[in-house]
Amino acid sequence: MTERRTTSGEPTTGPVLVVGAGLIGTSVALALDRRGVAVHLQDIDPVNAAVASSRLGSADRSQPLGEPALVVVATPPDHLVEVIGQALRAYPGAVVTDVGSVKLKPLVDLQATGADLARYVGGHPMAGSERSGPLAAAGDLFDGRTWAVTPHAASDPRAVEVVEGLVSTCGAVVVHLSPREHDLAVARISHLPHLMAALTAGLLRDAPTAHLALSGQGVRDVTRIAAGDPRLWRQIVSANAVALHGLLSDVRRDVDGLLAALDNGDANAVEEVLVTGAAGAAAVPGKHGGPPVELVSVTVTIPDRPGALAQLFTEVGTLGVNIEDVRIDHDPARAYGLVEVDVAEPAGEALAESLRERGWAAHR
Amino acid sequence: MTERRTTSGEPTTGPVLVVGAGLIGTSVALALDRRGVAVHLQDIDPVNAAVASSRLGSADRSQPLGEPALVVVATPPDHLVEVIGQALRAYPGAVVTDVGSVKLKPLVDLQATGADLARYVGGHPMAGSERSGPLAAAGDLFDGRTWAVTPHAASDPRAVEVVEGLVSTCGAVVVHLSPREHDLAVARISHLPHLMAALTAGLLRDAPTAHLALSGQGVRDVTRIAAGDPRLWRQIVSANAVALHGLLSDVRRDVDGLLAALDNGDANAVEEVLVTGAAGAAAVPGKHGGPPVELVSVTVTIPDRPGALAQLFTEVGTLGVNIEDVRIDHDPARAYGLVEVDVAEPAGEALAESLRERGWAAHR
Repeated sequence: MTERRTTSGEPTTGPVLVVGAGLIGTSVALALDRRGVAVHLQDIDPVNAAVASSRLGSADRSQPLGEPALVVVATPPDHLVEVIGQALRAYPGAVVTDVGSVKLKPLVDLQATGADLARYVGGHPMAGSERSGPLAAAGDLFDGRTWAVTPHAASDPRAVEVVEGLVSTCGAVVVHLSPREHDLAVARISHLPHLMAALTAGLLRDAPTAHLALSGQGVRDVTRIAAGDPRLWRQIVSANAVALHGLLSDVRRDVDGLLAALDNGDANAVEEVLVTGAAGAAAVPGKHGGPPVELVSVTVTIPDRPGALAQLFTEVGTLGVNIEDVRIDHDPARAYGLVEVDVAEPAGEALAESLRERGWAAHR
Repeated sequence: MTERRTTSGEPTTGPVLVVGAGLIGTSVALALDRRGVAVHLQDIDPVNAAVASSRLGSADRSQPLGEPALVVVATPPDHLVEVIGQALRAYPGAVVTDVGSVKLKPLVDLQATGADLARYVGGHPMAGSERSGPLAAAGDLFDGRTWAVTPHAASDPRAVEVVEGLVSTCGAVVVHLSPREHDLAVARISHLPHLMAALTAGLLRDAPTAHLALSGQGVRDVTRIAAGDPRLWRQIVSANAVALHGLLSDVRRDVDGLLAALDNGDANAVEEVLVTGAAGAAAVPGKHGGPPVELVSVTVTIPDRPGALAQLFTEVGTLGVNIEDVRIDHDPARAYGLVEVDVAEPAGEALAESLRERGWAAHR
């Protein structure tokens, strides 16, 4: 049902109109621009549009763009339906896509307007940043990332190909999902985790400094994404309310189960929740859809100064070991940091030993 | 109320008896051993004890140890009370401490036995690993880490000093908390986040592969700690049931609020949860108790082969920029990875630009 392709559709030739000069819209424009595709950026905020347009290089912006072959709608979620509808009416020869995080509700709302949606195909690039706006945009933001393409029953196959062409021209990889399936998927793997991070972090807002001082990497990891823009996320959560309501009801059932287990001193019931969680954590792909690889962490103590990390990685590179992931933990009370280097088994012990031989304090 | 010290107490001179040759107990023994302190390790599993003891180097293990001056109890949480009580009776001249993750319940249970607890002072090193057992242990596991010391009303000040000496001899930093305060703190910043990660991950256990394929760094971060050992965590959760029940009740209240907001289409109520979460995420110290530093991420595309990362870090080191954190994201469909390098502002834009000048695809 899902299909993952590295190339699909014909490369985008343009002209392309991007509506919404935020992080994603401007990045799409920059990605197309670097391939020489003629792009025009629009935004209700003229400053945003001017800043974004000034970053376009190769296209000749002094020439009028002409009728677009493709319109990419990159407005905030609350405005998608209105702007997609306008684009379909204004450019009767153009394919229209969007980059919204939720696909079903906008489609249903569009269908309710009676618009002919053959030329509309939704999309959702799985890339972003905690920053926003045209200055945070980058032409390589989508390189190697997944980009969901979500045709509906009335989508013209030609329009689907045009959107696939956009995805590959932007450097991303197409994944096909129906709008409903997409929304269930992102509710599970993105929107619910965001809410759980927000709930966990929310209980820390008024925590005493003495409690927060004991924070380790665990709580930092669990709460990191809760820092995302609340105004954007309120729109995403509201648009995917149905899928999220189902998952949150499951969470409520499980929280009730845990509370009862704590009340009754039922350690077996607690363990069942923990075992299920460990199985779920193991099911999450380690890297971008790839199969989980068994990794082992090697911890190395390094002086906290420029160059020390470079020296470490140079030596690791010399040893021919590929680093899968890295975490750094500083201690302000001491003049060094702890670095955890993840490598695929069975390289871990050999790496730790080689680093120790070279004078590093390293252990698995 | 909390005090953070880099040196405290006299260095441990020994002899020290460590009961429990798991990850933490063996690491304590190795940390003392490297300072030349005479250490003896005991475990109910003779193989564990033998493996752990074989890793001790400098101490002369052929000599009988004699009466210990300090006993460190490092058994699983369920056995702490029994073993601490035994140690107090068996060694009437020794100070006794433990390394359990929960401090109040064991203390109350010990008090109920009528034991004289003047020589008992609890402790909790904030260090660990997803691995367990004596082979995962390391003498530098505690270097630069926080180690909570939790005296009770009847603790002899001399005994507190002996435990402080243990902490600094092991390379860690003392934080003083009462047992109750400690348990509230770790419930908030460790045990509840663990349960929230387990609940989030649990809902992914049976998720379709097509959904999991869209996973990004966010869900990986939120669910990572759920991979921890369920048998250990059931004991921790059970021992800290009171503090966790309070926090989980707050979670239930907030989940109910979110469900109602979704039912009623109340986006303002959703946003309030998100704003509170963002404030909480900002309150978590960035690194080991240090003040949060404003960091900016620079994303760099690198070939996925040994040496490429080393070359990148060498160039970053040449530029004199200190790397605060690093994340790596591979894409199996392409022969390169994306590396996010966090640096303190205002170095970000300059770093991205310098790297681009050197031929890297880098952007903020």
